[in-house]
Amino acid sequence: MVQVTLAMVVYPRRREEMIHALRSLMLPLLAAPGFISCRLFRDADNPNTIFYVEEWHSQGDLELQIRSTHYSRLLSIMEEAAEPPELRLNWVTEVRGLEYVEAARVCDR
Amino acid sequence: MVQVTLAMVVYPRRREEMIHALRSLMLPLLAAPGFISCRLFRDADNPNTIFYVEEWHSQGDLELQIRSTHYSRLLSIMEEAAEPPELRLNWVTEVRGLEYVEAARVCDR
Repeated sequence: MVQVTLAMVVYPRRREEMIHALRSLMLPLLAAPGFISCRLFRDADNPNTIFYVEEWHSQGDLELQIRSTHYSRLLSIMEEAAEPPELRLNWVTEVRGLEYVEAARVCDR
Repeated sequence: MVQVTLAMVVYPRRREEMIHALRSLMLPLLAAPGFISCRLFRDADNPNTIFYVEEWHSQGDLELQIRSTHYSRLLSIMEEAAEPPELRLNWVTEVRGLEYVEAARVCDR
């Protein structure tokens, strides 16, 4: 799985506009090949910091999107940020859940 | 790197209390071995959905925390959620930035 995270500080007066622009990018992704999920957040302490997350099954699925208008629009939105945005691509090779935490805690007893 | 994500729907009347509880967990992490980052968000559309993210250099660093009071407190907070919370541990083996996106787009020309 490849996870894309975008942390972006926006100008307060443009915050809702930027959130709307990102939200409008999300809906078409639902039908994209290899799409897993997409989420949009505001920082709990600073509402002007936006956090956007996409998850894709494979690198190929993500690259298809990177070459599409989806990423042209995403990069345009990033250019409107108040500070240099932080875009990161994380290659995730293993995913575990609560059972891992529970097992690690039991092992310690 | 190991990334921990917690997505949690909280009762509206307890939202600020839960955010405060999570925030109070974050500060001591700054001094923990292998700590990279910790962030707390609200969903852009539903403020009752909280998203909490921790990043650790290694599995060993994370397991040390899992066996500590930090995770005892985190698990207690999760028990107060309005719906079953979604805890995920992602093993990240490669991290890239904007340069990857730019290269992938150039390759397509």
